[in-house]
Amino acid sequence: MSLDDLPTAIVQTDPDVVAGFAHDEARLVQRSTPAAVLSPRDTDEVAACLRAARAAGLTVVTRGAGTGLAGGANAPAGSVVLSTRRLDRIVAIDVEERVAVVQPGVLTGDLRAAVEEVGLFYPPDPGSVAISTIGGNVATDAGGMCCVKYGVTGDYVLGLEVVLADGRVLRTGRRTVKGVAGYDLTHLLVGSEGTLGVITEVTLRLRPAPPAPATVVATFASLPDAGRAVERMSADALDVSLLELLDATTLRAIDAHTGMGLDAAAMLLVQSDQPDPTATLAAVQRACEGAGAVDVAVTTDVEEGRQLLEARRQALPALERLGDWLLDDVCVPRRAIVALVQGVEQVARAEGLTIGVFGHAGDGNMHPTVIFDQQDPESEAAARRAFDAITALALDLGGTVTGEHGVGRLKAGWLARELDPVALDVHRAVKAALDPEGRLNPGSVLGARR
Amino acid sequence: MSLDDLPTAIVQTDPDVVAGFAHDEARLVQRSTPAAVLSPRDTDEVAACLRAARAAGLTVVTRGAGTGLAGGANAPAGSVVLSTRRLDRIVAIDVEERVAVVQPGVLTGDLRAAVEEVGLFYPPDPGSVAISTIGGNVATDAGGMCCVKYGVTGDYVLGLEVVLADGRVLRTGRRTVKGVAGYDLTHLLVGSEGTLGVITEVTLRLRPAPPAPATVVATFASLPDAGRAVERMSADALDVSLLELLDATTLRAIDAHTGMGLDAAAMLLVQSDQPDPTATLAAVQRACEGAGAVDVAVTTDVEEGRQLLEARRQALPALERLGDWLLDDVCVPRRAIVALVQGVEQVARAEGLTIGVFGHAGDGNMHPTVIFDQQDPESEAAARRAFDAITALALDLGGTVTGEHGVGRLKAGWLARELDPVALDVHRAVKAALDPEGRLNPGSVLGARR
Repeated sequence: MSLDDLPTAIVQTDPDVVAGFAHDEARLVQRSTPAAVLSPRDTDEVAACLRAARAAGLTVVTRGAGTGLAGGANAPAGSVVLSTRRLDRIVAIDVEERVAVVQPGVLTGDLRAAVEEVGLFYPPDPGSVAISTIGGNVATDAGGMCCVKYGVTGDYVLGLEVVLADGRVLRTGRRTVKGVAGYDLTHLLVGSEGTLGVITEVTLRLRPAPPAPATVVATFASLPDAGRAVERMSADALDVSLLELLDATTLRAIDAHTGMGLDAAAMLLVQSDQPDPTATLAAVQRACEGAGAVDVAVTTDVEEGRQLLEARRQALPALERLGDWLLDDVCVPRRAIVALVQGVEQVARAEGLTIGVFGHAGDGNMHPTVIFDQQDPESEAAARRAFDAITALALDLGGTVTGEHGVGRLKAGWLARELDPVALDVHRAVKAALDPEGRLNPGSVLGARR
Repeated sequence: MSLDDLPTAIVQTDPDVVAGFAHDEARLVQRSTPAAVLSPRDTDEVAACLRAARAAGLTVVTRGAGTGLAGGANAPAGSVVLSTRRLDRIVAIDVEERVAVVQPGVLTGDLRAAVEEVGLFYPPDPGSVAISTIGGNVATDAGGMCCVKYGVTGDYVLGLEVVLADGRVLRTGRRTVKGVAGYDLTHLLVGSEGTLGVITEVTLRLRPAPPAPATVVATFASLPDAGRAVERMSADALDVSLLELLDATTLRAIDAHTGMGLDAAAMLLVQSDQPDPTATLAAVQRACEGAGAVDVAVTTDVEEGRQLLEARRQALPALERLGDWLLDDVCVPRRAIVALVQGVEQVARAEGLTIGVFGHAGDGNMHPTVIFDQQDPESEAAARRAFDAITALALDLGGTVTGEHGVGRLKAGWLARELDPVALDVHRAVKAALDPEGRLNPGSVLGARR
């Protein structure tokens, strides 16, 4: 069996088409042109693709929408890209049991809209929610702004159908609320970034739809003030459904981009979706004012809340306008957020770079965004140094090198720094158990094969 | 290295002592007398125990408090039991980050009490909470009455320290709220029932302490009535923190045991720990009355609530007084609870046995308890048939063979029925990757080695 034996309708080798599948949205990560793009239409065809690639001696990179930020979908030399774009059906929504069964190519925003129509809620909302796929979200265990209250993608995955490297079809998990029969292969596969199998179906837990959120926006004259407000809210365990931080650099960029009139050292955006958020809103306000907030605005109006959140949504687009960008994704203990952001400011000064910081303060998961000029080798080198310094700082602060974007190819070297040698060995043993020939997404997560 | 090289203080071979470590609380499951009981005092000694057992050609069964209900801690021939009883320190409670670090031998009830003292909450509450250990709870991914609102043990495990079969020490996970660096080895180990490694330290997520719960108790003239009430509450996604069901057989046994004056076809116990549970309590009451409840009692008094819950706590002790018992632990989709309990009633009639059913209706996780006479081979055979018929019924209803007790040796054969051959193969490949010699808890979960 070779690629020629696959249905012609699912194989593309046109160089112009194939070139568009060479990489995802990560910067400064190696990529090659894949030998072909395979777009199977069902699980059997996925299995056929894997068998054909194996017979042809090619490796396989699975790709959702290509919105990844860690180069996990970049094609290495000698690979084919397996696109999930045609596996795009919402198979079933069971309203009573609050379970959805979906194919991996469904856009996360489309699933959220479909379950909303029947009064349910699929919380995970990565920044790319409108354009990224459920399969990619599961493969990276994507997060978002919801996580402070609702957790990450993996918290909603009950079971999977997965095609293994040799073409066998594995079913994991269950459809019941609880269950402990056997090893948790489901969550071994969640976040494995296409290195252990190709996800062909996902069974997801849903929640009842929450009320529309109320919103608080607070600005601060210094970053530590905002940090103290976050610490207060966290210590009081306020029931907030969103808790985002924007630093001065990011606010300046947004202001330049939108003319919103933002001018502060830091801004906090907070929401609560409780049935009656009155007490929580008051506590958020007290936390902000107690930490010396310059201005605090509270609204229960949904549309006004949406407008206030607009600054957050414009963070990355605004920073992108300043130049080329390298987006980091570190997560630290909540008490270390201020130390992290101040450390980033030092790095920016030392390298003479603009680095905006925004992110999920309620989880300690921040996105320092290094702005540089890809045409200027010195600027690129400085950006790489800054990126590395920030990632190292996160580890020093007791954090992790990736909170929600994944390791991919961008941080394969960093994984070896976060994990100890025994943990790396166990990773390699698990990889070898499921993909003994190293057929799936080689070089991603675990780096080059030893 | 052999067992003789271990510190004498941690090795027991006295036949009287060793006999007490031959089995856990499961009935009708094979066990042997272990060659020795090893009680290491730190991680290094755990590693030494594993190396010594390996050198001596012995297998290793890790044991917490021995309260398991699936024979997962039963000693096979040629094994030593590794007891975690001396690894009983709460290493740290970080109030600000809401994280606890504990050794595996800590009693779950003791940890709950310790974090309560600092205003925090560790939700998992298996029935054995006062006498079982965190290590055992993690190894089985234990549940409890909290799960309908707060999830299971695994939902609180951030990271682990584990000694592998060859004595190497593995650290998994993190201390941050989020993190996706590498494979989720933490949750591969959670629920692996001592077959992949020996847990020596657990990092746990904590929650803020909730308010004291309000309680509703409702009795029904028929089981389907109670089932309809559960369905109503579930469909309305009421924010309840406990939702337990007792059937007529269980109620009769409790009444005979306690003289509480219980006489109903079914009883529901419901709690809500919201700050203001008024609306939820009213909705619970409406759901019960709408389903034809005979009597509904509501109280916000904590002591009164505790007394009302006493019936639930007496379920197993009361059934135990009726004879020998075989406790099942099946989980079905919520809509199938009534079908499950009615099916159990049919099985009881067909086999001429008493089978009480109680459990976590909010999760569909029920505990049919077969009463029999172990001295009577016919009664024992009938009990085994009944147990198998109930477990098969749960699978037929789209459920799982174990909701929270684990597979152990009791249900190793059933795992092979729940999983397909590919999933079983992957289980074996993962087991071989982490424990190539089959040194850890052989025969448990995956059954005899092929």
